[in-house]
Amino acid sequence: MSVRMDATALAAFLEREFPQVHSDFVIERVAEREVTVRLAVETRHLRPGGTVSGPTMFSLADVTVYLAVLAMIGPRALAVTTNCSIDFMRKPANGADLLATCRLLKLGRLLAVGDVLIHSEGVPDPVARATLTYAIPPEG
Amino acid sequence: MSVRMDATALAAFLEREFPQVHSDFVIERVAEREVTVRLAVETRHLRPGGTVSGPTMFSLADVTVYLAVLAMIGPRALAVTTNCSIDFMRKPANGADLLATCRLLKLGRLLAVGDVLIHSEGVPDPVARATLTYAIPPEG
Amino acid sequence: MSVRMDATALAAFLEREFPQVHSDFVIERVAEREVTVRLAVETRHLRPGGTVSGPTMFSLADVTVYLAVLAMIGPRALAVTTNCSIDFMRKPANGADLLATCRLLKLGRLLAVGDVLIHSEGVPDPVARATLTYAIPPEG
Amino acid sequence: MSVRMDATALAAFLEREFPQVHSDFVIERVAEREVTVRLAVETRHLRPGGTVSGPTMFSLADVTVYLAVLAMIGPRALAVTTNCSIDFMRKPANGADLLATCRLLKLGRLLAVGDVLIHSEGVPDPVARATLTYAIPPEG
Repeated sequence: MSVRMDATALAAFLEREFPQVHSDFVIERVAEREVTVRLAVETRHLRPGGTVSGPTMFSLADVTVYLAVLAMIGPRALAVTTNCSIDFMRKPANGADLLATCRLLKLGRLLAVGDVLIHSEGVPDPVARATLTYAIPPEG
Repeated sequence: MSVRMDATALAAFLEREFPQVHSDFVIERVAEREVTVRLAVETRHLRPGGTVSGPTMFSLADVTVYLAVLAMIGPRALAVTTNCSIDFMRKPANGADLLATCRLLKLGRLLAVGDVLIHSEGVPDPVARATLTYAIPPEG
Repeated sequence: MSVRMDATALAAFLEREFPQVHSDFVIERVAEREVTVRLAVETRHLRPGGTVSGPTMFSLADVTVYLAVLAMIGPRALAVTTNCSIDFMRKPANGADLLATCRLLKLGRLLAVGDVLIHSEGVPDPVARATLTYAIPPEG
Repeated sequence: MSVRMDATALAAFLEREFPQVHSDFVIERVAEREVTVRLAVETRHLRPGGTVSGPTMFSLADVTVYLAVLAMIGPRALAVTTNCSIDFMRKPANGADLLATCRLLKLGRLLAVGDVLIHSEGVPDPVARATLTYAIPPEG
């Protein structure tokens, strides 16, 4: 199964369909069943103590799986998250961007499941992990 | 075990510690191990199709459990989410506020666990459910 | 929506389709979108220290949601669990049976979501909570 | 950080502390923060249609993370699971053993988090994935 949308196509889709969030995210890498997205951390993403907020990390995990699904099935705006489990394991490094990498573990006709690891750039131990399930709308 | 912070005290705490998000949330009700928070839905919370975004619902669930913990243990800014599972079950009703109710199922010395149901105001079937674990920092 | 299988019908179904586990479980109560199941705790369910094993509690949560789904849709052996999140919050009471109560939060055409609370009989604080998603096979 | 218990030491511990389950599991490989465990599938693990039961896969995931924690911290019987999220993604292959591989993502003083992938032997797509959190009792 080959990639149907590359980083440029995914970025254009994100800009068109999600104008309110697309500027937070940079698509770093797209491969078969694997996508990496960068969050350029800014002050509005932070909580007291300088940590990136939980909702920001959820948002990063969510968009990364979404893009990994779209990369394989092509543009469908209406795929929706049905479930997420997320573990926050360490405080992100101060001043570092976050990098989220999704591996699609399942890409069925109706459901897709993706695992995400989030790292502070340059730090080997992960900040967070998440698994998300997307319900895929019927084609056409 | 009695409530240590009422709605007024929790709102003041939220405003002081989380200035970037407090205006989204209204604390509707505080009781022993149970808190209800309203999200006044605005355009910036929406996704294509008029649905409230996943990160917005995550954020609502997260703050509701946080406030339910603080209501019982008193103000400690550094309690952190360690885990969340969330199920998105229905599209929220157009134009309705969201109401999240947390029940604390566990309030231990180190860990607290809260269950959250999110409803569109006036609609009986829940939009989402979540369970969050908070790590509680040692006192003093 | 009314109940299609009562406790007697569900117990007969369980005995026929799951002969290896049915004797562990007693169906205590069946109502619209709500089922309570008892686990008569025996030595084979225990771990060192006298606690009921995690897999035993998972099994109890799983069967309780399954029965709550079947009670509403009628007998279909092939509904499968796609996702579970479970929190183990307290040690069960020594020598007490476990009671699991499921509320179905969603009963869609393709997916059902149920919340479960597990208590030691007679103890108000829950031992565990779980949420399970079932994929429902097409009818006929 | 080096491995404190190898496969032989872990197997002896499992046999001593968990006599009722140890014979199901074979420890295939132990490395720093990574353990692989085989479940020799037998009739008692199966459900109608020949699939391995959910509780059996939960049990395999649970024991694999437990052994990965013990491999690093040494023998402590009282580490307990506090949380698990598990996704069942495909039917296991008929007649094949299951192999579970855990990577420890966090090994803190109080909490450990491990990710598990479960495969049917010889099949590249995973059958299930799970993440478990263990609470680690204080030493001594």
